Amino acid sequence: MKVTRYGACLLGVCGMFLFYSFVYNKDAGYAYRNAALPVNERVADLLKRMTVTEKIKQLDMYWGKEVANMQGHEAASWSPEKTKEMIGTEGIGSVHDLYPLTAGVSNDIQRYAMEHTRLGIPVLFIEEGLHGYSGLGSTEFPVPLQLSAMWDTALVYKAGRTIATETRAHGVDMILGPVLDLARDPRWGRVEETYGEDPYLNARNGVAMVKGLQGTALNSDNAVVSEPKHFAVHSVPEGGANISAVNMGEREARSSFLYVFEKAVKEGKAKGIMAAYHELDGVPCVDNKWLLTDVLRKEWGFNGFVLSDLGAIKMSLEAHQVADDMSDALAETLKAGLDMQFYDFAHADFMKAMQQAVSSKNLSMQELDRAVGDVLRVKFMLGLFDHPYTDTQLKNQVFHTPEHAALALQAAQEGIVLLKNDNKVLPLRANEGSIAVIGALATSNYVGGYANDSSKGVSILDALKQRTAGKVNLAYEPGYADSKAPAAEQQALLQKAVAAARNADVAVVVLGEESAVIGEGKDRAHLDLGQQQIDLMKALVATGKPVVAVLFNGRPLTLGWVADNVPAIVESWFGGEAGGLATADVLLGNINPSGKLPICFPRSVGQLPFYYNRKPTTSHKYVDEADTPLYPFGHGLSYTQFNYSDITVQPAVIPVNGKATVTVHIKNTGTTAGSEVVQLYIRDRVGSVTTPVKSLRGFSRIYLKSGGEGTVQFTLGAEELALWNREMKHVVEPGWFTVMAGSSSADIRQVDSLRVR
Amino acid sequence: MKVTRYGACLLGVCGMFLFYSFVYNKDAGYAYRNAALPVNERVADLLKRMTVTEKIKQLDMYWGKEVANMQGHEAASWSPEKTKEMIGTEGIGSVHDLYPLTAGVSNDIQRYAMEHTRLGIPVLFIEEGLHGYSGLGSTEFPVPLQLSAMWDTALVYKAGRTIATETRAHGVDMILGPVLDLARDPRWGRVEETYGEDPYLNARNGVAMVKGLQGTALNSDNAVVSEPKHFAVHSVPEGGANISAVNMGEREARSSFLYVFEKAVKEGKAKGIMAAYHELDGVPCVDNKWLLTDVLRKEWGFNGFVLSDLGAIKMSLEAHQVADDMSDALAETLKAGLDMQFYDFAHADFMKAMQQAVSSKNLSMQELDRAVGDVLRVKFMLGLFDHPYTDTQLKNQVFHTPEHAALALQAAQEGIVLLKNDNKVLPLRANEGSIAVIGALATSNYVGGYANDSSKGVSILDALKQRTAGKVNLAYEPGYADSKAPAAEQQALLQKAVAAARNADVAVVVLGEESAVIGEGKDRAHLDLGQQQIDLMKALVATGKPVVAVLFNGRPLTLGWVADNVPAIVESWFGGEAGGLATADVLLGNINPSGKLPICFPRSVGQLPFYYNRKPTTSHKYVDEADTPLYPFGHGLSYTQFNYSDITVQPAVIPVNGKATVTVHIKNTGTTAGSEVVQLYIRDRVGSVTTPVKSLRGFSRIYLKSGGEGTVQFTLGAEELALWNREMKHVVEPGWFTVMAGSSSADIRQVDSLRVR
Repeated sequence: MKVTRYGACLLGVCGMFLFYSFVYNKDAGYAYRNAALPVNERVADLLKRMTVTEKIKQLDMYWGKEVANMQGHEAASWSPEKTKEMIGTEGIGSVHDLYPLTAGVSNDIQRYAMEHTRLGIPVLFIEEGLHGYSGLGSTEFPVPLQLSAMWDTALVYKAGRTIATETRAHGVDMILGPVLDLARDPRWGRVEETYGEDPYLNARNGVAMVKGLQGTALNSDNAVVSEPKHFAVHSVPEGGANISAVNMGEREARSSFLYVFEKAVKEGKAKGIMAAYHELDGVPCVDNKWLLTDVLRKEWGFNGFVLSDLGAIKMSLEAHQVADDMSDALAETLKAGLDMQFYDFAHADFMKAMQQAVSSKNLSMQELDRAVGDVLRVKFMLGLFDHPYTDTQLKNQVFHTPEHAALALQAAQEGIVLLKNDNKVLPLRANEGSIAVIGALATSNYVGGYANDSSKGVSILDALKQRTAGKVNLAYEPGYADSKAPAAEQQALLQKAVAAARNADVAVVVLGEESAVIGEGKDRAHLDLGQQQIDLMKALVATGKPVVAVLFNGRPLTLGWVADNVPAIVESWFGGEAGGLATADVLLGNINPSGKLPICFPRSVGQLPFYYNRKPTTSHKYVDEADTPLYPFGHGLSYTQFNYSDITVQPAVIPVNGKATVTVHIKNTGTTAGSEVVQLYIRDRVGSVTTPVKSLRGFSRIYLKSGGEGTVQFTLGAEELALWNREMKHVVEPGWFTVMAGSSSADIRQVDSLRVR
Repeated sequence: MKVTRYGACLLGVCGMFLFYSFVYNKDAGYAYRNAALPVNERVADLLKRMTVTEKIKQLDMYWGKEVANMQGHEAASWSPEKTKEMIGTEGIGSVHDLYPLTAGVSNDIQRYAMEHTRLGIPVLFIEEGLHGYSGLGSTEFPVPLQLSAMWDTALVYKAGRTIATETRAHGVDMILGPVLDLARDPRWGRVEETYGEDPYLNARNGVAMVKGLQGTALNSDNAVVSEPKHFAVHSVPEGGANISAVNMGEREARSSFLYVFEKAVKEGKAKGIMAAYHELDGVPCVDNKWLLTDVLRKEWGFNGFVLSDLGAIKMSLEAHQVADDMSDALAETLKAGLDMQFYDFAHADFMKAMQQAVSSKNLSMQELDRAVGDVLRVKFMLGLFDHPYTDTQLKNQVFHTPEHAALALQAAQEGIVLLKNDNKVLPLRANEGSIAVIGALATSNYVGGYANDSSKGVSILDALKQRTAGKVNLAYEPGYADSKAPAAEQQALLQKAVAAARNADVAVVVLGEESAVIGEGKDRAHLDLGQQQIDLMKALVATGKPVVAVLFNGRPLTLGWVADNVPAIVESWFGGEAGGLATADVLLGNINPSGKLPICFPRSVGQLPFYYNRKPTTSHKYVDEADTPLYPFGHGLSYTQFNYSDITVQPAVIPVNGKATVTVHIKNTGTTAGSEVVQLYIRDRVGSVTTPVKSLRGFSRIYLKSGGEGTVQFTLGAEELALWNREMKHVVEPGWFTVMAGSSSADIRQVDSLRVR
């Protein structure tokens, strides 16, 4: 019995008949449709039935607009004719950037693929969703950097569940995230998309997000494939400028950068990986067999599929110039371990070049099948062959629910970092007096990059109005205009801001970055606030009124004069839909801030790169600059104080494969309830290779009422203690480890030792 | 017959008798004293006769002051008692920082070693000499960065010959240089010690300097051992701060950084190498077997000895923390390929730790013998066993001769770079009018780092006085005081400078770096001129008088406003003893400037690292900065103009092992005679790995009178065309190469192609 193009339809209505067919006619050709068979058998069966053309089309991604004939980014006006033209009878690999407003659109397209292609292979719908499904109306969480500033992986997991649920309800099967690059260079515009600078914190957040996105079963209607990116060592481009070359030795790559992906794959079970577009020591990542095959698949056991970052294969031809032509570029990258192109070449060109690669034997059928099989396997895992359509009512039940909105607010609250609070300027007294809100950014509702919809964002000004509810006299002044405005206009705005500050009890000044200077492709050579904001701040401080700086930004900034002269500074980042409200809550004392920096703030660009888990010899000693960062990794103040005591390491001596438990006692000695993020660092005192002066190996968020006490606990074992030795093996070496518990990487409160024998 | 401690003396006076003894009693023990035998046989023979203690002492360096009981750095008041105490009957490896004022002192110490130690093993005298023997009264060439700016390897070779001749005349046998690190980070304070950013330019200068130092025969009285440093990949410390960790992949390390050392060893035949103190991807260089044994000795055939950089072994214990104790640190580094310590551990501690390493078998006798043998081999090569003493009259004949001084002046002249000359402000009209010389640095006679003697330096002010000889009215104003001076004093100085400028026809303003902020351990996070100098320059430009900026500095600076608003800028560097005179010559038009930048000048620190031979994807695109450097690599103006024409590549197609000849026709189309440095760059259009957008592969300095014409010629073969492929093999790959001839890396004038088939 031959599978017809109506097979998918039959599957839906004639389950019992098909079950009979599968059981009794497996050899006759339907094994791949048998949901009872193991995925690998189904993949193998399907591959046998596919023509080369059908295989090649599975490796191609289609643009949502061209498949659905959409007008504009958000609209979704399906055109059956366009879908037919694109998908044909052979099917396609995936659709991206469709952003269906309802599952109806994705169902329509999917139905075409299931019913009108020869083999009924479903389409994979892929979208963005770093901190919320990037379609209209979704729940917008804070940018990943702020999610990481929560130091709360349970909440990251919940954010992931939320994103997955809202995404899949639109018939979308896969999210291009999380970003697991280590943010060691704040010049790089994508720092806001990362979980910060630290391998361990990134790994824990990465695993939580991958697990949150993928849920407990990929083939359920609340799970999507997670695709960590950008593999690998992407975030330290030369000069901090995106795409630039990366030169990194293997040991540091493995110890810090690959470590995060390793956890996402081995522990998080991520089924997607995005190969980055940069080169790593002379070899483009998309063309890097060591990365994509030896490490990712053979060492880590990855069994998902590898997608190229946008245009990265084309870059290997046109930018990296390591291929002679399109066909060569495709053959080389697929042989290295890549599986799907991302808008690299026009579909007809892609097909022709791939066919040429196959016919010339530059790409063997076995190599082609590996790539196609990877894509198909993920589609099987997602259950797309077995239940390809999404209940169109699901969205109404799960989309931006009050529970989701509450999570977004909680995340924004937990991720705000109180950087400085001299003389307890904060919290403001919320029920009296007057506040001058100053700064053009105070009215911004920007929710961060990789979000298509800022409409739900609440500006800090609006949030303060909402939270003070008329009980406080609020005045607003932008303080400066567009830098191209005449000097007289600028001066007038500044004077109006100064007057507003003079007339108020306190000035809350929102400083930071316009969205034009932060995000993908928006790299900066300067990290200061800019002359306008600095001049404004100087004038406001000169009034003698208490001044609070609120930072609205996606990367560490070199605050300079502001850090030295403003008594209170709140890092609010880009907080998603509830960022403004959370900021107001912190300012007014509705909540006690508990976020900690997931990345250090340098004093000046000339200190870069500056990260806490440096090697012992990396000194940052200059004749014209301090050797410390402005704010260290892990730093974050509270409206209360916490006392650390009684660290214990049990047992104090363990074998190389043993485990020890570290406990620390914490007491809230202040008058306000609050949460402390207790951080556990280790130092391997002597190793066969150099190791960082301090490495985060655990953290625990503990909520304590005023006077309350509690104990936090951590485990140290091979996972936490191993290093990449001279032979590039990951081993625990006998010797002494220093065990440190602290309130930041530079504020260690308790120290003990662990011996491995 | 047993060798007595008077053997060395006997050798001198009883040559015939000894010859008889060697020939007929070789087995009896004198082979190592036989100058007619091959060095390796002599080494093997001597090793057989040495005790473990004698061997260990050969791996130890002694401080000049302790061996000679010197008072102060330059004095040399020999104390026989002290020498006896230090050298004992077992001998020592080397003496450093003695700086004998005459060969008498080194002869005295050497005589003790030859006559009073059991085996009569000579001492090796080692000193600094990056741009002149670092003792008093030597010929001081410009800093290496300026030597490189000459693009004149014949003159670098002559400088090397000069340094060697003056050094050996003091009984000193070895110079710690040249510095062959690629200067990719101007924050690093040692940039002035390097030949700049480019692998090829550094390699050519490195080979010239090594050959110049080592001469045609090491055992002659005008040659010294050259010891390229710092091996390897030292110059790109994290954050630009000295000693900091380096993470670099092997391909980029080999293609750019190791390449320079490879040439110095394989082509220059350097007999010393200094192992650097930093770590390379987790492994300290002193403890890096891959570097010191696999690459240096096995691949490159190095047969000299490897000295640790100052304290680097100790650092492996105390900073890198890869050793359990002193003995472990020594055993591990020696096993990796190190040969001699550099003040790491006190002599008694060193001895004890080494003996422990040997007795515990942590270090085998074979491994110890390898290290000792390397040191002895170099002593034999230098002829120290055969003619250990230096003619004390030699110094008078060869030290700071008029010829040497003339070379130093020529080098300074050739290495000055005219960065900008709008409206032909330069040259100044030397025989008329008045010049206001402004800036505190105008009176500095600093000759650059690693020079113990600035007494011969002529300041720019003094040089202008000398060269104008009263024909021009010269006024001088410092313009600013020490930054701690009162504001009123600063203001007064600034106003006096402004007044001087108003009263003159032109202001020559010397800007740049005090020696306190440049040199080893003087790393900067900021590269601007500082507010004082910028304010001064703004005030001077505001006078409306023509202003010329002269830069007195050891690294690229971010000139900002000055570059935009000052019509003429001369880069004078730290020009050695004749730097001031050379600067005056350029300003006055006595010579036509011809230097070219060996390193690019970035616009801001946030652009770092910025070097011209970047990979194709390294973009330097920022939202707040230009994507170009301020001045590109190879840039340098002239008082005349040169026309490029008629590039040819013959043959146009070569086999992988073939050679092609590139010729370019140059014409001086201006009215002034002058030299042009013609630069040849290539681009490998498609490779198995990524290659730089442009790579220097030849340069030629051509002098042409006004209207004069000439042809320069270059060779392209395997050496120039090879890359490090996917299998880390150095190969030429068939394909097309773009061949470019230009006046700078950003000013390509002629383009052609070469095909390898």
